Amino acid sequence: MAKGTLLYAQSGGVTAVINASAAAVIGEARTRKVKVLAARNGILGALREELIDTTKESAAAIRALAHTPGGAFGSCRYKLKSLEADRAKYERLLQVLQAHDVRWFLYNGGNDSADTAWKVSQLAGAFGYPLHCIGVPKTIDNDLAVTDTCPGFGSAAKYTAVSVREAALDVAAMAETSTKVFVYEAMGRHAGWLAAAAGLAAQSPDDAPQIILFPERAYDEGAFLAKVRKVVDKVGWCVVVASEGIQTTDGRFVADAGGGTDAFGHSQLGGVASYLAGKVKAELGYKVHWTLPDYLQRSARHMASKTDWEQAQAVGRAAVRYALEGRNAVMPVIVRSSDAPYRWKVEPAPLSRIANHEKKMPAGFLRKDSFGITARARAYLAPLIRGEAPLPYGGDGLPRYVTLKNVPVRKQLPRWQE
Amino acid sequence: MAKGTLLYAQSGGVTAVINASAAAVIGEARTRKVKVLAARNGILGALREELIDTTKESAAAIRALAHTPGGAFGSCRYKLKSLEADRAKYERLLQVLQAHDVRWFLYNGGNDSADTAWKVSQLAGAFGYPLHCIGVPKTIDNDLAVTDTCPGFGSAAKYTAVSVREAALDVAAMAETSTKVFVYEAMGRHAGWLAAAAGLAAQSPDDAPQIILFPERAYDEGAFLAKVRKVVDKVGWCVVVASEGIQTTDGRFVADAGGGTDAFGHSQLGGVASYLAGKVKAELGYKVHWTLPDYLQRSARHMASKTDWEQAQAVGRAAVRYALEGRNAVMPVIVRSSDAPYRWKVEPAPLSRIANHEKKMPAGFLRKDSFGITARARAYLAPLIRGEAPLPYGGDGLPRYVTLKNVPVRKQLPRWQE
Repeated sequence: MAKGTLLYAQSGGVTAVINASAAAVIGEARTRKVKVLAARNGILGALREELIDTTKESAAAIRALAHTPGGAFGSCRYKLKSLEADRAKYERLLQVLQAHDVRWFLYNGGNDSADTAWKVSQLAGAFGYPLHCIGVPKTIDNDLAVTDTCPGFGSAAKYTAVSVREAALDVAAMAETSTKVFVYEAMGRHAGWLAAAAGLAAQSPDDAPQIILFPERAYDEGAFLAKVRKVVDKVGWCVVVASEGIQTTDGRFVADAGGGTDAFGHSQLGGVASYLAGKVKAELGYKVHWTLPDYLQRSARHMASKTDWEQAQAVGRAAVRYALEGRNAVMPVIVRSSDAPYRWKVEPAPLSRIANHEKKMPAGFLRKDSFGITARARAYLAPLIRGEAPLPYGGDGLPRYVTLKNVPVRKQLPRWQE
Repeated sequence: MAKGTLLYAQSGGVTAVINASAAAVIGEARTRKVKVLAARNGILGALREELIDTTKESAAAIRALAHTPGGAFGSCRYKLKSLEADRAKYERLLQVLQAHDVRWFLYNGGNDSADTAWKVSQLAGAFGYPLHCIGVPKTIDNDLAVTDTCPGFGSAAKYTAVSVREAALDVAAMAETSTKVFVYEAMGRHAGWLAAAAGLAAQSPDDAPQIILFPERAYDEGAFLAKVRKVVDKVGWCVVVASEGIQTTDGRFVADAGGGTDAFGHSQLGGVASYLAGKVKAELGYKVHWTLPDYLQRSARHMASKTDWEQAQAVGRAAVRYALEGRNAVMPVIVRSSDAPYRWKVEPAPLSRIANHEKKMPAGFLRKDSFGITARARAYLAPLIRGEAPLPYGGDGLPRYVTLKNVPVRKQLPRWQE
């Protein structure tokens, strides 16, 4: 074993492939004889000194981890303030890192996590402790800056496109005497990347989804209802994909999924799809159905994209390499050199350019009528859902997902006063 | 070609494998040199003389049909009354059958469709027209009498168990700082078969779903909330699977997914999961998420059970065989001879025993505390989700689903006055 340990942690909303990154980190570190500890529940576990000894996991378990969704070590939503404002926490973090001889820290997450990783990376300078901190990208929202795409997004995008195509076949069959309009609510509070991916389900203009609603465009109810009627008149039925983050012209969310009332004052916990379906039913009289896949869309490892899965592992391996090479405050990002044939590689990018930035969809990705995606968007999105990531099933008909032993490391320090 | 044609039609809510039955019907008929016409939108197409010539479809298209979800010829929700009450319709139907020399009629559907098939089967006697009418079972609700299970259910059951297991891994990872309770709404207005299938996701008592709510048991809000709290205290998080048809002790639906208000007077189009999630949040203060998969659960051919897929094809082949053998008013049903190893065969059963009956879950399938399934239920359900039905994907990362040409047959009769 090399001198020093590597600490890995998962942060923010988990994905179908974040554990593939974890498996790649552990696998690469094992090859290089580096011991990997994992923090339980992200940076919180590091503060609480709740660490897991990954050397207790078998090689088979780590291989199975690569196809298991969720976050095997637990994740967290927890934001560190600046070194000055949260000095006590950083000092505690440093004590934990020192107690366990952590020389390399890998933080696997999205925007907020890149910010945390960047702040932790500054510990070396501020406290004179030799730490190499690397961010590992992950988010189904696809909103990280610099990287061409984010591991996790491609699989959720594939789930979205496949689910919309399948549901559309159902609706088409029922439309004559039953449901004519179906509404699918896609995740994406600020950017419509997943809603856009639904557009890959369509091969010609009358294919589903005939209408996509993006948070990048104000929701115009009159235009929406007119479009639904037009599609039903022509096609016989209509599939709508709506981003959860769509807003009215005055900037209110059409429906706040977490709140008690929607933007129009109706009391519900429903969200956008239930609102739109209700409007279509009330105003146009069509029978409607709607779906809110919620966590299913980000945990559906059974529908993972092979491209996405490979990239999740590639950034995990690269992160270990960068750490051991002595880099600090960087993230391995995906760089695309060609759409067709699709070519990509992994390169380091400074965390400072990624933390707290949010990548929006380029305006050129949305059609002028704002109800669909352009050829440019399609060229960008298409490679990301390609290929089916291998998944072993058990004789019981369920995927063989692994539960790690997660053996805790003995604590060296007094309990943390949160 | 044999003398006479065979008419096939799809009815009621479609499934992931009803087209597998259609493909088997067409394939078996081709082997026997029998011409198959399909009615567009079920019995409505027969009444309207909107028939499709399936001989125009290539062998490759019919093979692809076997793995395409939805209903390739269109389905309908349309109920015929008795021969006396709807005499004009039956006469019209007879004219259409005669005009196209239809000697065999196969109707692929659930309870209502078995009733329609039974009524049509009586035409031969009533009008002296030589017709052989066979029902082909199909429904994700698994509520057909006589048959051990219904093609379509096993695949929806597998989707349910896999989705719940995947989402649970997500919730488990997030619970420390975010979502603690996740609610999954399963289809099943009158019987909790699909909710019960979610129980297959659990291997030990603390596994998700820790709570299942069945329409067979009155919804007791106090007991439900107490159980949620207990599970969160012990496990750290809780996954609830609720059947859309759960009712209060006085027989009101907890939330009417199609209506404007729930059983407690709140205005919403949401359904059961949004209601339960709202209650958990309000009463227990936990962060909640919920999902309404809706049509996704019955159209997810990508998650079809091999057992189910094989049975869907077996009943399709048997239906053709029965028809050509001269049987009338029967349905090929699944007969189970053993749970382990799972053994089944197809046998004919009289439509009169199936039409208008509804198979409930046996009381012995529900645990005494009513929040889960028993070992007996598990023994019944387990074989139905086993195996993964083969599915070819395109280079674009999407399943290769087929769109048939659906070439219309030239009409021989005047337009039907509906």
